Amino acid sequence: MSDPTPLNLETLKKEAALRAVELVQSGDRVGLGTGSTAKYAIEEIGRRLKSGELTGIVGVSTSEASEKLAREVGIPTETLDPRPLDIAIDGADEIAPNLDLVKGLGGALVREKVTEVQARRLIIIADHTKIVGTLGEKAPLPIEILKFGFLSTIERLRDFLPGGRLRQPGAQPYETDNGNYIYDAQLPRDFNPVELERRIKGTLGVVDTGFFLGMAERAFVAAPDGVRELTRD
Amino acid sequence: MSDPTPLNLETLKKEAALRAVELVQSGDRVGLGTGSTAKYAIEEIGRRLKSGELTGIVGVSTSEASEKLAREVGIPTETLDPRPLDIAIDGADEIAPNLDLVKGLGGALVREKVTEVQARRLIIIADHTKIVGTLGEKAPLPIEILKFGFLSTIERLRDFLPGGRLRQPGAQPYETDNGNYIYDAQLPRDFNPVELERRIKGTLGVVDTGFFLGMAERAFVAAPDGVRELTRD
Repeated sequence: MSDPTPLNLETLKKEAALRAVELVQSGDRVGLGTGSTAKYAIEEIGRRLKSGELTGIVGVSTSEASEKLAREVGIPTETLDPRPLDIAIDGADEIAPNLDLVKGLGGALVREKVTEVQARRLIIIADHTKIVGTLGEKAPLPIEILKFGFLSTIERLRDFLPGGRLRQPGAQPYETDNGNYIYDAQLPRDFNPVELERRIKGTLGVVDTGFFLGMAERAFVAAPDGVRELTRD
Repeated sequence: MSDPTPLNLETLKKEAALRAVELVQSGDRVGLGTGSTAKYAIEEIGRRLKSGELTGIVGVSTSEASEKLAREVGIPTETLDPRPLDIAIDGADEIAPNLDLVKGLGGALVREKVTEVQARRLIIIADHTKIVGTLGEKAPLPIEILKFGFLSTIERLRDFLPGGRLRQPGAQPYETDNGNYIYDAQLPRDFNPVELERRIKGTLGVVDTGFFLGMAERAFVAAPDGVRELTRD
């Protein structure tokens, strides 16, 4: 069989999103993820609010892009405060068998993490190409770093993560909603995610990483033969 | 004897600064600190450049304020890159006997740390009121935190640093040059600085702390009876 076409992938992402939104209940405060898969969940929540299937939803957005989309589809939003969120729905770039994740190719990793750590339930939605045996198999690990002194911070990271590069899609480096840069690091073959996360986060100039460890409760993963539901080991 | 008046303190700070600048050599790349004591060092470097006592100095500023002052007094500046600095001169809010420091009441803690970690020699200048037996005796520990979700980050910090508050001099919170906020934390009575630093830096939403541990080579501390020179234990 050939690889799924982009069109098929979009259909799969939407199917996963619809399954996740079934878990949202009226009155929930909902963390709204960022990216091409999360957008289907936001649209579906908006649709269910319009149709009356859901009422009293408040969205808390993880990026300026999601905030804009939420308003367009009619979801009332609030900014993050210390109250827990009932549920959060977001995509991921890699999903390990224990539901540890790498996120952040969309650039919103830190806002997503700061928001979703407060969610009682973090539900991940993805197509089947995001499933890996070990984190780092397919995607780099995004690391958000301060703009000031970023070259020195990258040198410190290269001491133990030598493969990687500053995210720079054009003439200027990519800038996060927090005004920082991103270093996309190739992960080593064998590593302990908790230890590596601690070492990276402890590096001067690092704001946070795209590791989401022990956070996701379940994932809906859409494949051509249907949507699989995965729960944490 | 009564406490020194503010005027006396200014004289002392300047005396300490002049001693530190004697260590700067022609051709040095010099990290320029931030705050009311560091400004005397910047002014003195500028004076020595004008008089010809120093030549070929390049300054690397730790804040927009220091950059402005450096230009005013005629020090050529460059932005930070991964090359080492020959020397850096800066003030401190607290100086422990082993020259561990708390810095950041001036708000430039992270830029100072990112810059000064690259200095072959970090020289601290202060008046005698900054000497403490244990860090946290007189000053809070400034912690730079992301603006996004800052209330949640403060709750996470309060779990183990219950005394403290968001720095807010007026209607709005204080904003660092990096666009972040500062939580000024009261330190506990007994703590291991290295462990506490690691725990704070590992907290989601924290950018860095005002602990400068094992970084300073020497300090010039001015008291009414003269300038003392302290070196690391």
